[in-house]
Amino acid sequence: MTTLEGKLLIGQQAVTGQSAEIKAINPATGETLAPAYAGGNAEAVDQACALAWSAFDQYRETSLEQRAQFLEKMADEIDAIGDELTERGVAETGLPQARLQGERGRTCGQLRLFAQVVRAGEWLDVRIDPAMPERQPMPRVDLRQRHIPLGPVVVFGASNFPLAFSVAGGDTASALAAGCPVIVKAHSAHPGTAELVGKAIQRAVAACGLPEGVFSLLYGSGREVGSALVADARIKAVGFTGSRSGGTALMKVAQNRPEPIPVYAEMSSINPVFPLPAALSARADAMGSAFAGSLTMGAGQFCTNPGLVIAQKGADLDRFVSSAAAALKDSAAQTMLTPGIFQAYEQGVLRLQGESEVREIVRGQAGDGPNQCQAGLFVTSAKAFLGSEALQEEVFGSASLVIECDDAAEVKAIAEHLEGQLTATVQMDDADLDAAKALLPTLERKAGRILVNGWPTGVEVCHAMVHGGPFPATSDSRTTSVGSAAIFRFLRPVCYQDLPDALLPEALREANPLGLRRLYDGQREQ
Amino acid sequence: MTTLEGKLLIGQQAVTGQSAEIKAINPATGETLAPAYAGGNAEAVDQACALAWSAFDQYRETSLEQRAQFLEKMADEIDAIGDELTERGVAETGLPQARLQGERGRTCGQLRLFAQVVRAGEWLDVRIDPAMPERQPMPRVDLRQRHIPLGPVVVFGASNFPLAFSVAGGDTASALAAGCPVIVKAHSAHPGTAELVGKAIQRAVAACGLPEGVFSLLYGSGREVGSALVADARIKAVGFTGSRSGGTALMKVAQNRPEPIPVYAEMSSINPVFPLPAALSARADAMGSAFAGSLTMGAGQFCTNPGLVIAQKGADLDRFVSSAAAALKDSAAQTMLTPGIFQAYEQGVLRLQGESEVREIVRGQAGDGPNQCQAGLFVTSAKAFLGSEALQEEVFGSASLVIECDDAAEVKAIAEHLEGQLTATVQMDDADLDAAKALLPTLERKAGRILVNGWPTGVEVCHAMVHGGPFPATSDSRTTSVGSAAIFRFLRPVCYQDLPDALLPEALREANPLGLRRLYDGQREQ
Repeated sequence: MTTLEGKLLIGQQAVTGQSAEIKAINPATGETLAPAYAGGNAEAVDQACALAWSAFDQYRETSLEQRAQFLEKMADEIDAIGDELTERGVAETGLPQARLQGERGRTCGQLRLFAQVVRAGEWLDVRIDPAMPERQPMPRVDLRQRHIPLGPVVVFGASNFPLAFSVAGGDTASALAAGCPVIVKAHSAHPGTAELVGKAIQRAVAACGLPEGVFSLLYGSGREVGSALVADARIKAVGFTGSRSGGTALMKVAQNRPEPIPVYAEMSSINPVFPLPAALSARADAMGSAFAGSLTMGAGQFCTNPGLVIAQKGADLDRFVSSAAAALKDSAAQTMLTPGIFQAYEQGVLRLQGESEVREIVRGQAGDGPNQCQAGLFVTSAKAFLGSEALQEEVFGSASLVIECDDAAEVKAIAEHLEGQLTATVQMDDADLDAAKALLPTLERKAGRILVNGWPTGVEVCHAMVHGGPFPATSDSRTTSVGSAAIFRFLRPVCYQDLPDALLPEALREANPLGLRRLYDGQREQ
Repeated sequence: MTTLEGKLLIGQQAVTGQSAEIKAINPATGETLAPAYAGGNAEAVDQACALAWSAFDQYRETSLEQRAQFLEKMADEIDAIGDELTERGVAETGLPQARLQGERGRTCGQLRLFAQVVRAGEWLDVRIDPAMPERQPMPRVDLRQRHIPLGPVVVFGASNFPLAFSVAGGDTASALAAGCPVIVKAHSAHPGTAELVGKAIQRAVAACGLPEGVFSLLYGSGREVGSALVADARIKAVGFTGSRSGGTALMKVAQNRPEPIPVYAEMSSINPVFPLPAALSARADAMGSAFAGSLTMGAGQFCTNPGLVIAQKGADLDRFVSSAAAALKDSAAQTMLTPGIFQAYEQGVLRLQGESEVREIVRGQAGDGPNQCQAGLFVTSAKAFLGSEALQEEVFGSASLVIECDDAAEVKAIAEHLEGQLTATVQMDDADLDAAKALLPTLERKAGRILVNGWPTGVEVCHAMVHGGPFPATSDSRTTSVGSAAIFRFLRPVCYQDLPDALLPEALREANPLGLRRLYDGQREQ
């Protein structure tokens, strides 16, 4: 059993913070959890950045095998923490033990997937256009391209996935895979979970003989530590999962630097669901209860929670609403992650209740402890939705809004009206194919992932996943934060012209010592 | 012979502008060239954006073959303009006819290269993770990823490449290849050249049966038309080549939109050259004259002009400087592209002359017409350079600054001190290998392209080229604006979960009708 120390992890050191303390709160009981975590100050930020910067040139030239082994060692060390990790996680988040066990599996599986990706080396995107000394009217020089990492990356842990989107989560895994040192700003909701994982990474760094600046973990109660990290000239990219206000604030900091840097912020999504007529006619009841299951999963605290249902009004939609309402009415209240999230949820529900054009259909069971999320289902008209910006705001939690449309054209108009989304879901039967085809171009422009006959809560870590989408779902639609393609966020191309073989990086040498499938003179090598 | 009309090209129409007129000026004579081009207004911007938007969903789903043929047809139509194009180009820019003929070849070759890239389909980056219904503890859904274009793109023509970085230049070619409609804001320095190329594209759009909104061309005397285009909600990305102030102004407009969008601005680079000791000892004289040739090429108006030389001081460097000075002293003045560029060059030279720690070594021949660039070579110390931000500012034209360093450590310190660059060049012999290895990591972090024993002016259009680099060389180091990889700037991934085959885009269908090498279940198909 580890004794939690409550310290900043700067390289291989554990350092006592000098700023205001945070303590975790058990959201299920309101109990404050020891130890206290004193926050970092400007000096701690400077130390972590200096170490990361000094580690960068060495770490980015580790071999593919060495870097892959490091990622696997991280996974092994996290696995080795054992029950202490999930138990502390439960205490800090109110999430069920089984959920955290699953999340640990996902986190370690993600690290091992990136180890495979690093070994395969496709991410280097090697392109070679060999010299053509005889070409007329001008000879061609020898040109070779590979990708290199951007530099040290700051990762902000998210509250809703204390393992998979936190200290060793997807942002950290993909940045380290790309060859970027990482400084994590821990989320203040789960500092102990963060410390346990942070120390596991420290051990992996030491075991692999890597420079200590490859990883640091800082705490801080407000936005100061995070903003200072993002503003530091040695930081070259940012990964963030959280609120729209938090993400856009970091975007501003990053844009106002002397050297602006990319921010990958995953922020806000209401994940529209489009039940099409034939599907609704055939299975409105089953669809309604399945929808309720997705809506209430994890107290509605998934980024991909279905917060909006858009369909043509009529008896079938009424059946869907009734079925969903019946399921939600009996749904037990669940503990939300933090008092802050609970308060924001309550305000969001009050906002819906205060809209004159919105009808409340049902509320779920009220809880009897603190921070209990009581589900809610609301209905409005297409016209009311189109006329109200407030109705597009995310209510983070188990609340959803059904929009009744006059016809397919109005459904499409709502889809066009939406802001960017992480997901868009179509419920369809064979007879809906033409309607789905008509809607698809709009959904492609609006969302990072399009689902048919599933529910958006459930984000597979694999090669084809896109957890991303147009603003405000994310700050950069050109990428994904989940899945192996996330590595591309932290890379940039460099071209080498006429370098002698002895000076070239290994990946670019003529003999192809890494055995990569390169784009050689425009042809893909086999 | 075409009669230039002086009109905006909005879709297939030629429309008379309603705002202030611009007229081209022959920089070699000061003569004003007919016709006048009245600028666009808010209505013209709205019309062009509405057409581009309405064309987007259709254009982006054209087949690979159809889109490739369109790019080739554009090239054919530009070739077919004949001498009129290069003659008007000479009159508007003062560039020699042969240069414009070469640039036309480059422009059309670039379009044909992108046609090949589109046909090959690798840019779709298709990834398929098939369903695993038996997986424990949870089945895996079917997930398929492709890339889709971002949406309509605004391209700003550059003055220094009136064909290759203008109306049908690299930004336009790569955006159209990606499936994005393009609206070009013509550079006011060559409106007639722009019109000729714009009408060639109009003809290609019509001949290929594409929706007319795929291409429009707007004029405008100030920044209003450009800013209005970038601010329009239907525009989803921006390509720009020009000044740092112009690029950063567009970045601000793009970031302050309700939906921020990516700006690919290529702006400012002084392209350091590092002659290493053994190379300098062996061939300082030849190196000096070759350097002078690169510096004065095209009146120094290439983005990759070598504006900085950094080396250890001593007799060898003195010989390099003397040799360069001798070549520059005899170099004829050349007409600069515009009166504005000429004035900025003169001010830049005055600024160097006014620095107390900077010695003027030589000036080239003075010209006797207007807008004549008189080359200049200056020398300063490493300490002076490190102490002056002004000395890092680009002087766009044939002026360069030599920095004398005490030792290799000071050379490296200067390299670390530099802002982001398009290129960095090393002059080395075999005995310099260790010194080059020591410098390489810094150069990789600073530049998009690293050259050995060449000169940076000369940017090959191919697969491995990177014409990019960290800020302020560009606004986005993750990309290139020249070469086939430029297509990736205008794409974003979309994931399709459990879609029936009939609803899937062709590229993702199980039978692989496009014959792509997909990443199938983590393995690259052969």
